[in-house]
Amino acid sequence: MNITIIGATGMTGKALVNEALMRGHHVLAIGRSLEKLAAGKDSQQLMTIAKDVFALTKADLADSDVIVDAFASSPDQAYLHVDLATKLIAMFRGAKQRLVFILGAGSLKTGEDHHLFVHDMEQNPKVQAIIEVPRNQFAELTFLRTVKNVDWVGVSPSINFHPGAATELLLGKDELLFNEKGVSETSAGTMAVAILNEIEKPQHPKERFTVADR
Amino acid sequence: MNITIIGATGMTGKALVNEALMRGHHVLAIGRSLEKLAAGKDSQQLMTIAKDVFALTKADLADSDVIVDAFASSPDQAYLHVDLATKLIAMFRGAKQRLVFILGAGSLKTGEDHHLFVHDMEQNPKVQAIIEVPRNQFAELTFLRTVKNVDWVGVSPSINFHPGAATELLLGKDELLFNEKGVSETSAGTMAVAILNEIEKPQHPKERFTVADR
Repeated sequence: MNITIIGATGMTGKALVNEALMRGHHVLAIGRSLEKLAAGKDSQQLMTIAKDVFALTKADLADSDVIVDAFASSPDQAYLHVDLATKLIAMFRGAKQRLVFILGAGSLKTGEDHHLFVHDMEQNPKVQAIIEVPRNQFAELTFLRTVKNVDWVGVSPSINFHPGAATELLLGKDELLFNEKGVSETSAGTMAVAILNEIEKPQHPKERFTVADR
Repeated sequence: MNITIIGATGMTGKALVNEALMRGHHVLAIGRSLEKLAAGKDSQQLMTIAKDVFALTKADLADSDVIVDAFASSPDQAYLHVDLATKLIAMFRGAKQRLVFILGAGSLKTGEDHHLFVHDMEQNPKVQAIIEVPRNQFAELTFLRTVKNVDWVGVSPSINFHPGAATELLLGKDELLFNEKGVSETSAGTMAVAILNEIEKPQHPKERFTVADR
């Protein structure tokens, strides 16, 4: 398939490019510092566009079967997560392309009362500096859930989302996952495997799912 | 003030242009068939731009203090209500401009159980042809309610929204309004008066209000 990765130089983006190439897909990588990405890669399956994501046009993405939004803003412009999602949705209304949005753990539910995990984050002084990111990723999901004529899917990692190779997967829908040791974490490699699985065999049309390291 | 009306040739747009000019504001009218609009008007306070609303740039709107989105799509492209709102919000993140969005009655609550009026519309065979309009206007409001760094306000009319001069106003917030005769209606003139009142003296920052004919 032709898979476009927006934000290809970020933690998730890099893992996605590697996983997609390994599975034999054609990859279009979009990001700012693509020298980093292309270095060490000698794949005829990889094309790159160095461009501000907000300057992307429908023509740039016309050959894509699937577009993965792995864009990550700085915390002081966290609303850009929402703005890129709304831009991509407007661009692909009624189109055949599938759009994959990487969301945070904040929009997952947790506890016996199924409260949003972002509310726990709001009580945690350590995450105040980045709190607008989960808030805006929840706004992004809230927006996506109103969209009926685009083939979208959202994916959330667990609490501790970190670099690393894939492990066995633990999959869920809207509840925050913990493994048998009580740990809630997802490696970028695990995330990439879960997303490529979903791309190759869609299981979650117009909904969000979540993945953790088992 | 400098007030821009997007969708200036529609029922609400025309009433807004007239009301704003009458109150001495500078009006920038944006629409497709502006000959109609300009005909009969000889006001130095009125400027026009004939342009597809999705081709509007921030530069087109740079001199505006307030931008009113009175755009109305055809029912088969009702998602354009959402796409224009998300475009305008992305355009004015953190900016000083005030954005006014005209929403439908469908997103108002009604009955003892405070259900959404759009659910009543979904049960009414007469409105099936246009049902995507209230659904998308509710999606538009759902999106707007997640927006924290733009000075937006939403306005909903009552059930029967029709051409006509202003009457006395009946104002509310999120509940569908009925007058003393049990009628739920809003004339375009009443809508224009309520919106110009809100523009001149903001009462509803980052929320939606509703207006009916008394």
